[in-house]
Amino acid sequence: MGYPQIPAFAGAPGVIRLIGHRGARGVLPENTMEGFEFTLKTGVELLELDVTTTADGVAVITHNHRLTPSMVRDAEGQWLQATPPKVSALSFAELQQYDVGGLDSSSAYGRRFPDQAFLSNIRIPRLADLLALLQQPAHQGVHLLLEIKSDPDLLSDTAARRALVGAVVSEVRKANLQPRTVLHSFDWDLLADCQRLAPEMPASFLTQLPENAADVGEDSSKAVNPVAGCTALDLPARVAAAGGQFWCPYYLDITADSLSLSLARDLGLTTVVWTVNEPEDIERMIDLGVDAICSDYPGRVQRLLLKRGLHWRAN
Amino acid sequence: MGYPQIPAFAGAPGVIRLIGHRGARGVLPENTMEGFEFTLKTGVELLELDVTTTADGVAVITHNHRLTPSMVRDAEGQWLQATPPKVSALSFAELQQYDVGGLDSSSAYGRRFPDQAFLSNIRIPRLADLLALLQQPAHQGVHLLLEIKSDPDLLSDTAARRALVGAVVSEVRKANLQPRTVLHSFDWDLLADCQRLAPEMPASFLTQLPENAADVGEDSSKAVNPVAGCTALDLPARVAAAGGQFWCPYYLDITADSLSLSLARDLGLTTVVWTVNEPEDIERMIDLGVDAICSDYPGRVQRLLLKRGLHWRAN
Repeated sequence: MGYPQIPAFAGAPGVIRLIGHRGARGVLPENTMEGFEFTLKTGVELLELDVTTTADGVAVITHNHRLTPSMVRDAEGQWLQATPPKVSALSFAELQQYDVGGLDSSSAYGRRFPDQAFLSNIRIPRLADLLALLQQPAHQGVHLLLEIKSDPDLLSDTAARRALVGAVVSEVRKANLQPRTVLHSFDWDLLADCQRLAPEMPASFLTQLPENAADVGEDSSKAVNPVAGCTALDLPARVAAAGGQFWCPYYLDITADSLSLSLARDLGLTTVVWTVNEPEDIERMIDLGVDAICSDYPGRVQRLLLKRGLHWRAN
Repeated sequence: MGYPQIPAFAGAPGVIRLIGHRGARGVLPENTMEGFEFTLKTGVELLELDVTTTADGVAVITHNHRLTPSMVRDAEGQWLQATPPKVSALSFAELQQYDVGGLDSSSAYGRRFPDQAFLSNIRIPRLADLLALLQQPAHQGVHLLLEIKSDPDLLSDTAARRALVGAVVSEVRKANLQPRTVLHSFDWDLLADCQRLAPEMPASFLTQLPENAADVGEDSSKAVNPVAGCTALDLPARVAAAGGQFWCPYYLDITADSLSLSLARDLGLTTVVWTVNEPEDIERMIDLGVDAICSDYPGRVQRLLLKRGLHWRAN
């Protein structure tokens, strides 16, 4: 209802929006300032990112709750071993010891992104670092799809969940970027807290049907995603009933037909599909007429949109 | 013989060098400052680029002699039509009207690089722009493989060739970057001029056997490359006889066996292969033990080198 964020993500005649997933994970290390800066330089003005908090309450941009051996090196440049610490167990200063600049090519996760450049001495950024970048005059058109990652070990801990939401909302408000931020999660309880605490930001409901879940090498979101027993056709109504503005289905969940998309449209939802990387899948999502495509390969999506005479920006 | 440029390009135990081809053509528009800056940010310190001159004698970084419809838009943002002007017929100011920020996905050339991001309002840079960047303290370790493109219409024009070489050498000397520059060409007569005019810079001899030439959508180099009737086994001796320091064969020309590489090594030549993009070809070049790999996908090469326990830098 008059949210200024919605037009930035909504499709229009000739326009399907393009969102850089964790920056541009296919090209540069995910959730890094380097990746976000690259994505912005390519004219992609919608960024998806993941946020959690450190032991000392700093909102940081990273996906997995536990530092992950396939993508994190220690202060000596060695891949992490066995059972590394959780982000929430480390202070921000401790977290800055770790290097997230590259993937281990021999890992299953590393093999998923064979073209990702290998950098060194790259640190997990604070949410505040990215927000400061977006306050610059050149980036006034940039909007965020800010995913809040609830800790699977603390799902029943209401106070922990509210502290996390509070930390994120407080940073966004400090930077005065609420009009350009959408709060996004798999955890619908957490989104209910977002709606109560920050009603000025739309709530974006991620869904992934259990039968299609296959994100090798990543923290699972299944535990917090209340879609068991649903089909794609059930999801728009559930998002609308929860007061959501965005529905973000996993692309494989809506591949079969476009009926769920029509339902979403009729309910006034903006539909953002994730994470669409293969050319044939990108083309299929274009054919379905989604509002926005979230991809690890934004350059590839740009080129496929242009081939159809479409664009990712309205002007 | 004591050239300071050679160690930067020479392989060593555990090291195969990595050269970003036209920046990183697979990721960002070729021969642009945006592409070079990206490549440097990924820790790749060897850049290949193409240089020719405008009607008013400005050395500019671009590959084809004629502005190419598949990669150049006019001031109104439209793809060029039919017979566009040659770079050498335009002043630098006129050249700046054209936008080289993206590829036409419907063209044969555009289809070769489906992941290249699509930018707008990107200009053909001056050689001086890149040299100024490399004078910055952060880039003191960067070296250039600077290809000089002789105009196929002026092959017998000695004065034109010398003016071109003179313009390039003068810019490099003005920036005092001779100790970090290698002069590179398919045109061996032009390289002879380079050797006379600028003996402080190694000469790098490009070769491509006619039977393997297949660079769709690009200016051909065959007319100026004196390799007719040769096999790969003949080439090192010919480069050495011409006083070259670098031999740069097309990768398909040396795929069969490693004998030509041994010959080159015995003759004291540094062997740089181009342009190696497919994972299996990159792996084959690693197996052959070339000194350096020139690729449109430097991130991909980084990852494949690391998988073998190799690196592209000596430290």
